[in-house]
This record gives sequence, C-alpha cells and structure tokens, in this order.
Amino acid sequence: MPHYKAPLREFEFLMAEVFDLPHFWQSLPGLAEVDWETAQEVLKQAGKWCEEVLAPLNREADEVGCSLKDGRVTTPAGFAAAYQDYSAGGWVGLGGNPQYGGMGLPKSLVAAVEEMVQGSCMAFGLAPMLTAGACVALDAHASDAIKEVYLPKLYSGEWAGVMDLTEPQAGTDLGLLRTKAQPNEDGSFAISGSKIFITWGEQDFTDNIIHLVLARLPDAPPGVKGISLFLVPKLLPNAQGEWVEPNALGCGALEKKMGIKACATCVMNFDGAKGWLIGEAHQGLACMFTMMNYERLVVGIQGLGAAHGSFIQALDYAHSRLQSRSPTGIKNPSGPADPIIEHPDVRRMLLTMRALNEAGRAFYLYVAMALDGAKYAQADEARRHADTVALLTPIAKAFLTDKAFDTAVLGQQVFGGHGYIREWGQEQYVRDIRITQIYEGTNGIQSMDLLGRKILSSQGQLLAPWLTQMQQFVASAAVPEAQRQAFEQALGHLRAATAWVLERAKTDPAVVGNCAVAYLHLAGLVAYGYMWLRMSAAAEGRDGDFYREKQQMAAFYCQHLLPQSLALQGQILGTDNPWAVGFNSVER
Amino acid sequence: MPHYKAPLREFEFLMAEVFDLPHFWQSLPGLAEVDWETAQEVLKQAGKWCEEVLAPLNREADEVGCSLKDGRVTTPAGFAAAYQDYSAGGWVGLGGNPQYGGMGLPKSLVAAVEEMVQGSCMAFGLAPMLTAGACVALDAHASDAIKEVYLPKLYSGEWAGVMDLTEPQAGTDLGLLRTKAQPNEDGSFAISGSKIFITWGEQDFTDNIIHLVLARLPDAPPGVKGISLFLVPKLLPNAQGEWVEPNALGCGALEKKMGIKACATCVMNFDGAKGWLIGEAHQGLACMFTMMNYERLVVGIQGLGAAHGSFIQALDYAHSRLQSRSPTGIKNPSGPADPIIEHPDVRRMLLTMRALNEAGRAFYLYVAMALDGAKYAQADEARRHADTVALLTPIAKAFLTDKAFDTAVLGQQVFGGHGYIREWGQEQYVRDIRITQIYEGTNGIQSMDLLGRKILSSQGQLLAPWLTQMQQFVASAAVPEAQRQAFEQALGHLRAATAWVLERAKTDPAVVGNCAVAYLHLAGLVAYGYMWLRMSAAAEGRDGDFYREKQQMAAFYCQHLLPQSLALQGQILGTDNPWAVGFNSVER
Repeated sequence: MPHYKAPLREFEFLMAEVFDLPHFWQSLPGLAEVDWETAQEVLKQAGKWCEEVLAPLNREADEVGCSLKDGRVTTPAGFAAAYQDYSAGGWVGLGGNPQYGGMGLPKSLVAAVEEMVQGSCMAFGLAPMLTAGACVALDAHASDAIKEVYLPKLYSGEWAGVMDLTEPQAGTDLGLLRTKAQPNEDGSFAISGSKIFITWGEQDFTDNIIHLVLARLPDAPPGVKGISLFLVPKLLPNAQGEWVEPNALGCGALEKKMGIKACATCVMNFDGAKGWLIGEAHQGLACMFTMMNYERLVVGIQGLGAAHGSFIQALDYAHSRLQSRSPTGIKNPSGPADPIIEHPDVRRMLLTMRALNEAGRAFYLYVAMALDGAKYAQADEARRHADTVALLTPIAKAFLTDKAFDTAVLGQQVFGGHGYIREWGQEQYVRDIRITQIYEGTNGIQSMDLLGRKILSSQGQLLAPWLTQMQQFVASAAVPEAQRQAFEQALGHLRAATAWVLERAKTDPAVVGNCAVAYLHLAGLVAYGYMWLRMSAAAEGRDGDFYREKQQMAAFYCQHLLPQSLALQGQILGTDNPWAVGFNSVER
Repeated sequence: MPHYKAPLREFEFLMAEVFDLPHFWQSLPGLAEVDWETAQEVLKQAGKWCEEVLAPLNREADEVGCSLKDGRVTTPAGFAAAYQDYSAGGWVGLGGNPQYGGMGLPKSLVAAVEEMVQGSCMAFGLAPMLTAGACVALDAHASDAIKEVYLPKLYSGEWAGVMDLTEPQAGTDLGLLRTKAQPNEDGSFAISGSKIFITWGEQDFTDNIIHLVLARLPDAPPGVKGISLFLVPKLLPNAQGEWVEPNALGCGALEKKMGIKACATCVMNFDGAKGWLIGEAHQGLACMFTMMNYERLVVGIQGLGAAHGSFIQALDYAHSRLQSRSPTGIKNPSGPADPIIEHPDVRRMLLTMRALNEAGRAFYLYVAMALDGAKYAQADEARRHADTVALLTPIAKAFLTDKAFDTAVLGQQVFGGHGYIREWGQEQYVRDIRITQIYEGTNGIQSMDLLGRKILSSQGQLLAPWLTQMQQFVASAAVPEAQRQAFEQALGHLRAATAWVLERAKTDPAVVGNCAVAYLHLAGLVAYGYMWLRMSAAAEGRDGDFYREKQQMAAFYCQHLLPQSLALQGQILGTDNPWAVGFNSVER
C-alpha cells in the first residue's frame, strides 16, 4: 500500500536557505506578520494530516470512484469526512482574503500545503483547489454584497466553488461556447446550456456548490469577446434565507476517465438556472484569467506532488527489492541478491526522478514568490513580479506536469512488473498525473502562450530580465566550474532559440505553433538548471548528507539532463515548415 | 468508438518496394515457394478480420475484463468466438513448422499479421503470440514424440501455449526462482511452486493450456545454471487417450492491472503437477532464449501496432474537431473554426507519431528478415543474419515500445480532454502499451543486453557490420544532401558513444548500467533514421502523394527527431559515476 511522506526538510531548505522567504515576507506590507515559526507549524500540521488522513484514502478511492444516481453523486468512503475535517482545520481559506474569513497566508507558503494535499490524493485535492480558485476570481471581480455572502462560506469549506467553462464544441476555443444568459427582472440572469468536464460539479460533502459559469448575454458579440462570467449556486436561499431551494441545474452524467477516478467529472445541465453577473458584461474571460495564473501554477504543483509520491514509493521499493548482484561488487552478502538500488540503471531512474522533482519544487516556490510580490509589493516592484508571473506560469504548468509524468513513468518502471499492478499504486500516479498535461489549458496551449503571447508579443522584452538574473547569478555564485559552463551553454541555447524565433516570425506565421513545445521545454530545462545551481550554492560550505547530496544532484542534473538543451535547440533551429507535410496517403 | 484500419499500402511499400521481400524469400531454400500474391492475400485477409471481427471487441473488453470464479476464468464477450474463428482460419500456426501442421510462412510476413492483431486488441493478441512462442521453443528443443502430440494442437489453435517464468521473488533475476521439479518413476516430473504474472495462464477459449514452466531439478546448481524447462499441460490424457484429466495446477488469482485488462494475468499454483522435461536438464534458460528473439520482436510489434491504432484515431479526430483558426489563414471558411489538424502544434504531434510509427514498422520488418535469414539461409550467411538478430532485437523490443508509448501519449494529447475519457479509446492505448516497456525483459534490461552482452562483449565487433551497411547505403543512396548530413552526424554520435563506452568499461564496471538506456535510444534513433532514408530512397523518382509524403516525412524525421542524438551523446559522454550519489537525506 503506497504511503505519503511530507518533504518538510525540503521545504525548510528551499524556504529558509535558498529563497529566504521569511525576509521576503517581511518585506511585503500585507505579509509582514507571517513569521517563520508559524509557517513551519502550518507545514508540519498539513503534512501530518496528509500523511495520516488523506493519503490512506487514495488507493481505494481510485478503485471505487464516484457514482451518480437520481442526480446525486456518491463520493468514495472517507472523502466527505476528510473534506469536513480539512475545512474545520481552516485549510480551504489558507490563502484567502482575511476581510472575509481567509487566513491571508502567502502563496509561497500555501503552495507547499497544496503540494502535500495533491501528492496525497489528487482527486480529493481538486475540490479545495477549485474552491480557492473561485475565491480568487470572486475576490477580484465580485461586488462587495456577493463577496460578503459567498466568500466566508467558501473559505470555511461549508460550500465549494467550481468552474464551468468547457462545452462539447468549445474546449480550447472558448469563443465557440453557446451557453446563454438571459436577464431576469430582478437583476439576476437565467443561465441555460450544457457544460462538460466539470470537475467536482456535483458531490456529497459540502452544503452548497457555487458554479462560476461562462455564458453569453443576448447582446454578446461573437467569439471570446462575448463571454461573461456568472455565479450560479446549486442551492438558493428561500424566503427565510435558508439555502435550500434547488436551482435549475443538475449533473447529467459522470465521465469514465483514465485517472482521478475518485473525482466526479460532471456533465452539468443548466436549464434557466438563476445566476449573477461577476465583473463587467463580456469580460468573463478576463475575469477568469485573474485566477488562471493561480490555477495553472497549482496544476503544475499537482503533478509535482504526485510525482513526489511516486518517487518515495520507488525509493522504498528499490531499497527492499532484491534482484541480481551489483556490477560493482556484492552489496548485500547475507541476502540472495542485492537491493535493486545498487543497479546503476535503477539508480539513474531514481536520480532522474529526484533531480526533476526537487527542481520542480524549487521552481513552483519561485513562481509563487512572484505571485506574492505581484499581489503585495509596491507599484513598480509589483509590476516586475507580475511580469515574472506572466512569463513563468506557462512553464510552471506545462514543464512541471510533463516532467511529473516522465517521473511517474520512471517510478512505475522501477517497480518492474509490480508497477503495472494497481495495488502497488505506481500506475495510479501515471494515470492521475496524465490529466495535468491536458486540463487548465493543454501543455501545447501553455507553450503557445509562452512563445506567442509572452515572448513574441513583447519581442523578447519579458524574457530579458529573467535571463539577466540567471546570468548574473551564475557569474558570481559558488558553484563548480563544470556546472557553470553546462548551465551557460544551455542558457546560450535558449538565447539562440529565442533570437531565431523572433527573426523567423517576421515571415512565418506558423513558427510559434511549430516550435512552441520544444521552446517551452528548453526554457523549463534552463529554469530547472537555475534552480539546481541556486540549491547547490545554498548548500556550499555546509556539512552533512543533506547538503552534499544537493550538490551531487546539481552535478547529476547538469551532466545527465541539461544536455537535452542541445537537442531542443537543434529541433527549433531545424524547423522547416513541417505543417506543410500532407496526410493524404494515410489509410484510415 | 475507435476503429482499426490495416496499413496494407504501407506493407506493400515496405515489403515490395523498400526491402524487396519477394526476392529475399525466393533466395532462401525453405521460403522459395512463398509468392508475393499469396503474401498480399494473407495480409488482406488478416487485415479484414482484424478490422471487422477483432477491433470492435477491444474497447468493451477493456471495461469488462476477465473474472475468476472457482478456478475458472471468464473472458470478455466475443473473445472465445473470435479465438475459435482466428484458429479456424489457420492464423495461429502461420509461421509454424509445416511438418506438424504449421503454415511455414516467413517471419517477415507473419510479423505484419501480428502487427494488425496486436493493433486491434493487444489483450487478445497475447494469446496467439504466446502460443506461437511456445511452439518455437518446442519445435527447437522438444522430442519428436512431444512435438507430434503437441505442435499440431497448438498450431491449430485447439490448445494454447503459455510461459511460466516469474515468481514473487524472481522477476528480472530468474536465478532466484524456487519452483521444484521432482522426477516421477515414469520419466515425467512433479512440478510444485507458485508463478505470478502468467499471461493467459487460464482462459475459457481453448480445450487445453500447455504451460512451459521454469523449475529446478533436485540436483540443480544454484542460480540461472540450475533452471530447467518443463511442459505442463492443464489437462492430461485419461486411459482412453482423451485429454480430460485435470493436472495438479490452477489459477489462484487474477491481477488487477493498469491495462490489457481483457487479458487474464494469473497467479498459477503447481502442486505436484505432471510435466515433462524439454531440452537438457539445467538448460532451461537457453531453451527459453531460443524463443526470446521472436517474443521480444513481437512485443516491439505489439507496441507499434497499438501506436498505429492511436495514430489513425488521432488523425481522424484532428480532421473533424473544429477549434480556433489556423495561424496561416482561415482553412474552413464555412465552419465556426478550422479543423485542429491545421494548427501547427497538432500537426507536429501527428507528424511525430507518423514518423515514429512508419520507421518502427520498417525496422521490425528489417529485423524479421534477419530472423528469416538466420533460420533459412546457408551456414555463413545464416550466422551473419543471426548476428544481426542478436544486435537488433533489444532495440526492436525497447525502442519500438518506448516510442510507441510516446506516440500514444501524443495521440491522447491530440484529443485534448476527450483523450482522458475512456470511451474515446485513446487512453487505453497508453495503458495497454505501457506493459510492453515492462514485460519480456524491461527496457532497461534490453538496454543492458544491447550495450553489455552485445556491444561490450564483442568489443564492438557485432556492431561494426551494421554501421558499415548504413554508412555504405547513405553514401550512395538517392537522398537529399541535408538528410545525408543529418544522418551521418547521428551515426557519428553512435560511433563516438560506442568508443567512449568501450574505453570507459576498462576501468568502470558500472558504465553499462549507467549508459545503457541512453545508448539504446541513440542506436534506435539511428536505426529509425536509416529506415527513413531507405524509404526516402525507395520513393525517389516516383509520382503521387504516397511517395512525396514519404520523402517529406524523412525530412521531418531528420530535422525534428534526429537532433535528439546530440543530447544522447552528451548524456553518455557526460556520465560521471552518478550511482555514487546517495539518498540518505530523502524523507520517506
């Protein structure tokens, strides 16, 4: 049975020793009261809850899944109690606005809690994640009256929040959506239409579910400029103010999925359901984008969290499974064979997993810091942080999830045949993580966001300060010369690829689509390299296994994974209108 | 609902135009009577059966799976009838020894049939695949008496053959196996022990199941040198010669797996079951290895077959799914959006899938030709072919399945959210293919077989003729200069990596384990490049979409996928004792 172990020492290292978050928080007006002892206690308690309460539910919940009968969803045994326990602990509103009952803690702390929750049970973790996201959108765009009613109930976990975007004909292209919003006389709207892939659109563990629905007003212009955002509760208040009146909406079906089976993915039907406009008319997409940077980062964190779960199981298994003798001599003379961790190829897999996970963890905290800076810092500095968020969020979403998937596939491989058997839990990580590469904007879409909307639109200006920051760091940091050189080479590839795309884009409108995924991977590889050099430098001069291993891991990353930048650069610079190849001769 | 489409035109191109199989067959004594018209008819009939009978079972069978009650396995609806239909068509014994009722067709034809069966339903395809494998082992090592009894029943499909190797403590390391074989007075043996992961160890569609079991004789030396091979039927003949007496063996449990759910993966318990020694005592592993080259190639073909299924669904979907407008201008003015195949990133995914699949298909046929040559050619030439088989089989198993998995993940990505939903079938390809990277020797084991047992043990001598063949071909072939250069660069990386490993191995016993997977991928990348150049050259000077697309695809492969060799070479030459990094500081 797989278990979860919270990486508390890793958090401590990254927060206190690499990024010095305690001083960063103190420097920001709204966060000055967050002290390091409180933060550590938050992490410790969250870790304990994840290890003891949530993680033990994960395997069985995947087998059982959710069921739908007469419009009601039954969730796996233990989910409702766990959700209520989690809510009672105040965890749902951890990063929420204190004015409405949130705890106001920084994203750079909340993100670590999210990693532990998602790493323990992704299907469950989606519920508080979506609620927190809905709160971000409401906090930014809803009227005070709505905020006063809804935010306290959402932060407390009594109610849940979900997003209703996708329709059968409108996935990536939300401009195609058809759900209608007809004005009622009382200022509310009647929402009609059908939404699909609505995560936790229905469940049995909160008193109410607040849907944030994208729909079109009667006078809406076509395409994405005609989309508005509506708040549509599952239950409405009766005359006595009790929230017991059913709204005209319901779950029509549950999807049968590859993974996150314990989570209800709903078809939601709205049949004149009562809703309220959030933000301005036709500005729905902009309102959604307010929360998007948060949500996309959490999806990256989801992948990373689950990949960490895969890693610790694989590491355990590699220590206990005995097969064959090590090529460097017998390591376990009293046993019939050596633990497989003594086999170089198994060790290579575990090192790769570790190198990707630890860099991914550092990177999401780095992006979370920028989110905090954008929210809490002063004018110019806030803008600088916001630029960093804009640049790095697609990398955090797509690269973390792509590497999390690779990592979980390796973790499964370490288990050999047992990795394919469900009870061992390794294949579930693969199935669960797979969705993180698809939802919240596919990783292809993230890549085009990075290369098109961020790099190309700014003519590289958004990228320049980050490149400078990395260049300056590596020029002066206490890292081995070989690592410095390896990193500078990869940085050179990123610069060259950027220049090539900017030039090529003058004549080739397809260059972004052609190169985007390779470009994002190149940028992600450099970002992880930067994280490893920062960790290596922070470990410099410190004694003990922990710091020595960090420096060895940095070397492993530079030698074994960073050379991938050569191929990615080659791939980008070798792009030659591949979209012009036809598929006419394929029998299908 | 996913469908299957047999790639008949691709087979024709590869067999008749690229490899000229009709002449190759004619040149071999045992195959001289195989004519091209017969071969085409075999492919056509097999394709039709796969499209119409087998493929429609695949999706529902995955949902239903197999069940076990009172030791009896119930297989998904339609499997038994399909198996009997397949058997009646003579397909099980297609490559079998004609002396015992086999059809005696070349592997280079049978392999294409196997691709279609595996591509239509992997779980089903495992049954005839294992039977054919068992026949290869019996044909090579069993006594005439045994062959006369068993081979006709196996070739006809009345009985099935399976392999019983793995035990809970003995997976990759078969030296640890404990199952015992005690001599009986009548010359037979009593087999006792427990085996796991026995594919189709029990089912309901053949009259008998013949287990080939690895076990230890009482006087067996420890380790792999003490393993013998036994034939253990599920049912034994009674005094009247009717095969109705239950042997002392049974299925104790079915595994719950990630994929190939429609296939019964059994725990098999042997409790003094009656069996007969096949081959010499203590030579069981050598007997198994006779069939291993065939089985490993088929596992590669399995992956490729399913990846082809993924590709044609993805191509269909990309033509019909409308989302957003193409960056190069509106392509579907009468519709609300363009088909997603007009988006460069989607096209890149489809091109990547196609480039990998078509090269993989060419490569397995190339290896199958060598198997035919090794079996049917004269002394020296047969040895030359056998060397090719030895060298390329691990690449065919591991590289085809690794790339098949990547391909299916891309195919799922093309479907966006729908790729995660089971009814669309794309996620099943991912789950099914995943096992091909694990069983029949994990891909890590294949890599070490290649680099350790094949390259290093021969000090590169086994590799040299293949490198020369490729070098000579590319020097004179009618291919564009840019492709020649790209290929020669990759070939140079393979040479450099080989030289580096041979040198390093003098002082570093872990070098094989450290570099094996990267090395196999580098060799596979070069092999696929060679296949693309051969296809490109065969298409030179021919008119029509089919040939033009082959040349365009060769260019795409060289520009977009071959640069990966840069990274792999860098990774190998950068190897620096990564196994020396510790994991002491990981909280787990």
